[in-house]
Parts: sequence; C-alpha cells; structure tokens
Amino acid sequence: MEEQVVEMVGRAFVDHYYNLFDHDRSALVSLYQPASMLTFEGQKIHGVVDISAKLNQLPFDQCRHVISTVDSQPSAFAGGVVVLVSGSLQLHGEDHPLRFSQMFHLIPTGQGSYFVQNDIFRLNYG
Amino acid sequence: MEEQVVEMVGRAFVDHYYNLFDHDRSALVSLYQPASMLTFEGQKIHGVVDISAKLNQLPFDQCRHVISTVDSQPSAFAGGVVVLVSGSLQLHGEDHPLRFSQMFHLIPTGQGSYFVQNDIFRLNYG
Repeated sequence: MEEQVVEMVGRAFVDHYYNLFDHDRSALVSLYQPASMLTFEGQKIHGVVDISAKLNQLPFDQCRHVISTVDSQPSAFAGGVVVLVSGSLQLHGEDHPLRFSQMFHLIPTGQGSYFVQNDIFRLNYG
Repeated sequence: MEEQVVEMVGRAFVDHYYNLFDHDRSALVSLYQPASMLTFEGQKIHGVVDISAKLNQLPFDQCRHVISTVDSQPSAFAGGVVVLVSGSLQLHGEDHPLRFSQMFHLIPTGQGSYFVQNDIFRLNYG
C-alpha cells in the first residue's frame, strides 16, 4: 500500500473511532470482531462482545478525545495498518485532561473497511 | 500463542531493545531487517540500513530509558507480537526526563528470535 494511502486510512480510522467514542460509544461495537483483542490499562479483553461491554461500562459517560499525533505504517499482514495515537482525554467535570497513548492494528474486512485486530490503550502519567 | 508467552516475548524484547539502545546503540542494527519501518517523531525511515543510521545519529549520545508499562498481544500475522511501551527518556545533562510512547510489531525470524517489522516512536508532550 502506498504511504499516503496508509496515512489516510490511519487518520480516517482514528477520526471515526474517537468521534464514535465521544458521541455514540455503543456504536464502537461495529469496529471489532470475534478475534479482536483489547488491552485497556493492562486488562486484557478478548472478542467484540466483551470489548464492547468494557468500553460501554467505563466509569465515565461523557468524554472528549483530543488527538495530538497519528502515525501509521503498513503491517506485515496483507493490507493491514498499524497506528500509534497520542492525545489527551478530557472527562466531564474534571479540570485536567489525561494524556494517553493507544495503538491499533487494523485489518481489512474485505468489504472496503477495516476492523480492529489489536487495541492497546494506556494513560500516560508523570 | 499463549498469552503468557506473548507477554514474555514482549517484555524480553523491550528489555533487550532499551538495554542495547542505552549501552550499545550500534547493535540495534541486529533487530531490524530490510523490510523494517521506523517512524521517529513523524519522520519515516525504511530498511535496516537507514534505520540504523538514524538511531546512531540522534542528537544525544548518552541516554537512559525507564520503562513504565509494556503491553503485548499476538498479532494477526502468524507468530507476530504487537507491543506498546510507555516510559521516560533521560538524556545526559538534562534535568527532566522526556515521556515517550513506542510501539513495535515483532515478527519471528524463523530462527527462534524476532525482528522489528514496525516501530513508531513519539515523545509525549503536555
């Protein structure tokens, strides 16, 4: 895949992902599959059902992600894209945003879109 | 791959990588291959030769990485492992460490070890 296309795929995915997260979180279920994996602050969660449950049960309802950087590369898996995101997460009613890093490994669905095979999220303290 | 094995691979790689980076940086060349990709603070570098040159020409000689978190998952690529690292980078003569995030996609060499297919590094400001 051309470098520019990979960058576009990564950026478009990231915009879509955090837009859903902040405005329609239950719809994130559409981006995962049974083989998907999420590691959220060290907790490992497998499969679309449990991942969706985790994301919808986080202890905050309203939040806003502000993206600082998005870097994408083609992965070794044909058509896959790895993405590293850095940014901050503003929780409703909290004064200070939380810095975070998140990586995604996106795999083509074969229907012109991508699903999340790997998702690792960490808050950055200190 | 079993979850525990994946965690061990990720942790062992990360320990090895930053130990080389901090004490024998030129030896990092052994961890990359011609197909490897590095995105360093947004700059894209392809292939072991150029990646090694970049790492050895960074504008600091002595540094120390302190690792905060290492999260690993099996990737969709058979035997591959994705790793997200967070930590801080202490440069010689600087008062304050720099926070960073780095992701690796490791691929088995077929000889019992792994090489870095994807490497994305970002300093975390703010």
